[in-house]
Amino acid sequence: MPYTVTVRDHMMVAHSFTGEVFGPAQRLHGATFVVDAAFGADELDAGGVVVDIGRAAAALAEVTGALTYRNLDEDPAFAGVNTTTELLCRVVADRLADAVAGGALGPAPALTTITVTLHESHIAWASYSRPL
Amino acid sequence: MPYTVTVRDHMMVAHSFTGEVFGPAQRLHGATFVVDAAFGADELDAGGVVVDIGRAAAALAEVTGALTYRNLDEDPAFAGVNTTTELLCRVVADRLADAVAGGALGPAPALTTITVTLHESHIAWASYSRPL
Amino acid sequence: MPYTVTVRDHMMVAHSFTGEVFGPAQRLHGATFVVDAAFGADELDAGGVVVDIGRAAAALAEVTGALTYRNLDEDPAFAGVNTTTELLCRVVADRLADAVAGGALGPAPALTTITVTLHESHIAWASYSRPL
Amino acid sequence: MPYTVTVRDHMMVAHSFTGEVFGPAQRLHGATFVVDAAFGADELDAGGVVVDIGRAAAALAEVTGALTYRNLDEDPAFAGVNTTTELLCRVVADRLADAVAGGALGPAPALTTITVTLHESHIAWASYSRPL
Amino acid sequence: MPYTVTVRDHMMVAHSFTGEVFGPAQRLHGATFVVDAAFGADELDAGGVVVDIGRAAAALAEVTGALTYRNLDEDPAFAGVNTTTELLCRVVADRLADAVAGGALGPAPALTTITVTLHESHIAWASYSRPL
Amino acid sequence: MPYTVTVRDHMMVAHSFTGEVFGPAQRLHGATFVVDAAFGADELDAGGVVVDIGRAAAALAEVTGALTYRNLDEDPAFAGVNTTTELLCRVVADRLADAVAGGALGPAPALTTITVTLHESHIAWASYSRPL
Repeated sequence: MPYTVTVRDHMMVAHSFTGEVFGPAQRLHGATFVVDAAFGADELDAGGVVVDIGRAAAALAEVTGALTYRNLDEDPAFAGVNTTTELLCRVVADRLADAVAGGALGPAPALTTITVTLHESHIAWASYSRPL
Repeated sequence: MPYTVTVRDHMMVAHSFTGEVFGPAQRLHGATFVVDAAFGADELDAGGVVVDIGRAAAALAEVTGALTYRNLDEDPAFAGVNTTTELLCRVVADRLADAVAGGALGPAPALTTITVTLHESHIAWASYSRPL
Repeated sequence: MPYTVTVRDHMMVAHSFTGEVFGPAQRLHGATFVVDAAFGADELDAGGVVVDIGRAAAALAEVTGALTYRNLDEDPAFAGVNTTTELLCRVVADRLADAVAGGALGPAPALTTITVTLHESHIAWASYSRPL
Repeated sequence: MPYTVTVRDHMMVAHSFTGEVFGPAQRLHGATFVVDAAFGADELDAGGVVVDIGRAAAALAEVTGALTYRNLDEDPAFAGVNTTTELLCRVVADRLADAVAGGALGPAPALTTITVTLHESHIAWASYSRPL
Repeated sequence: MPYTVTVRDHMMVAHSFTGEVFGPAQRLHGATFVVDAAFGADELDAGGVVVDIGRAAAALAEVTGALTYRNLDEDPAFAGVNTTTELLCRVVADRLADAVAGGALGPAPALTTITVTLHESHIAWASYSRPL
Repeated sequence: MPYTVTVRDHMMVAHSFTGEVFGPAQRLHGATFVVDAAFGADELDAGGVVVDIGRAAAALAEVTGALTYRNLDEDPAFAGVNTTTELLCRVVADRLADAVAGGALGPAPALTTITVTLHESHIAWASYSRPL
């Protein structure tokens, strides 16, 4: 996938973690996640793009919109799991993959991968990559 | 105050806001605040500094350490007020001013002002300035 | 105005400059301007804000939306002037001031100033400040 | 290619796109592209480098210099194609590969790949990778 | 390694380079290196993490702490080699790999790779990747 | 000075500090300083600019060029003083002021102030402002 196109959005959530290793993060706290979604492709379409940036941004905004301004501890989708930065990378990537499969980005036959990066601060971030 | 020295830290909190204008932010959610504390001075001391950067960073870390990994809705210091980004700028600035008055930065007689900026995302931030 | 709240947006324009000092920028070229609008206030309102960030972002989006994806050389508003980065800072600031005066940000009686910064690249930017 | 060295430059261009999917970007508009060129190598040379950063920066400046302050719609090299961000990534990468082949970076026998990233705004960028 | 977690730190060193290609960098000079250490893993552990971010940050701080505020020309570890940005990427990565092998990050059985990036300025950086 | 125009450059220096408060920074070490020079003006000139960005960048490059790739401990200009980040802000600002007075930026009668910011890392920076 020599080509990638990336769009950025963000979400602001509350959550807490289970496990002594998390120390003070076991308490209810929160995070702004700046979210980068990178779509990979082997070639450009006839218009010269990997994917339309407007559509990609809209698809990402729909995914972050379902998570932002919420307490993730109360979201049934996350029952029994820690909503760590790396776990949320996978959740966002999987939901975007579903959107792609559902046609949200148009035909987009050339898309091969998606990589999602969540920045939790200026000094820590995580990512998850998967095929499409 | 022709001179300033700024140090950066961050904190990760949960909170909710009261008031219809806040829309979905009325729900319990969270934020990473990247915090910049700028100390202003009219002149440099004999060593050539506004303030020792190590001491300034330590003072800021103590202030953010008392707020991070917490649900601000449960902190008695914020009973009855919205812990908006701009309000928290003032809280951090006032606590740093107290630390300066208490000698946390050394003698530091030349310090004249402090400006605190909190970045809540890559597209929004706030600041508060006050004299020292 | 001890408090400020800043929101960020962007616009992508074509334009050319008149005057030998501009060298190659006399040719038709273009720029992405990342636009920061900082609203200043002397005090917070009863809800604890300078201005609602959602409303501020919407007001800025309306101003950048009227300029983006255009050739500024063909915009009658700029006939006979160079649409330099610093000139566009003033244009955005003045249009935001009109929006504030028109109630776009709500009552907002405490707003005192607006500062607009346009980043034309990672190594150059300009700003313009005015009272409200 | 365990090693990479990256240098950054920028270019400011006007252009327009053909195709309804582009919406308002069908109009003549412009962009600042902040351009990152990453050179990959399997090992360091005797001096301890992938490539001399000064030479790499000069080679990139020559490529961006031939594109900046221009209306790409009038450049014969782009007749009949949309100069999208991802297409321009490939153009810059291919021209840098030609420069490497022509000796612009010195012997540089260890160079294996080049990846070019163009940032069109603070919320969107694209990249293209190819072997050398 | 679909997952990565990255932590950032920095170090401030003096050094000089041997070799005419380095031009003025043959003189004793210095650099701030902003250091990003990315740990890769094939899967998350039971707690939902690649590696505990606190432990990763502490391991990185120990490595940068042994290098910062020093003249690398006088460090026996670098006798006869140029401490270029790319060479230092490998040094930091290898020392982190030793720390991982020594248990500094806990059991961490899923870790597969480490990539270290050193930013020497806003316009140049390098990286080195290796298996764990 | 409602208007400002800012240009960015950098310099890479070695130095050491005298005074116990500096701790490990008393040893010979180094820094990359990313340097922002902001020129302030009360009004735009007939061409619509505060100052030509090309000329401003060239003036800044001349000032940083005289400092970069050097050991500041051996520069007679700094005998007996600590070349702290805030001290170097003033040095750069004063040298730019001399350049302005010498006509390096053209007539530039409207320039009123200069503010120089030096970023020593991603978590610390300083600035100095003076009239022109």
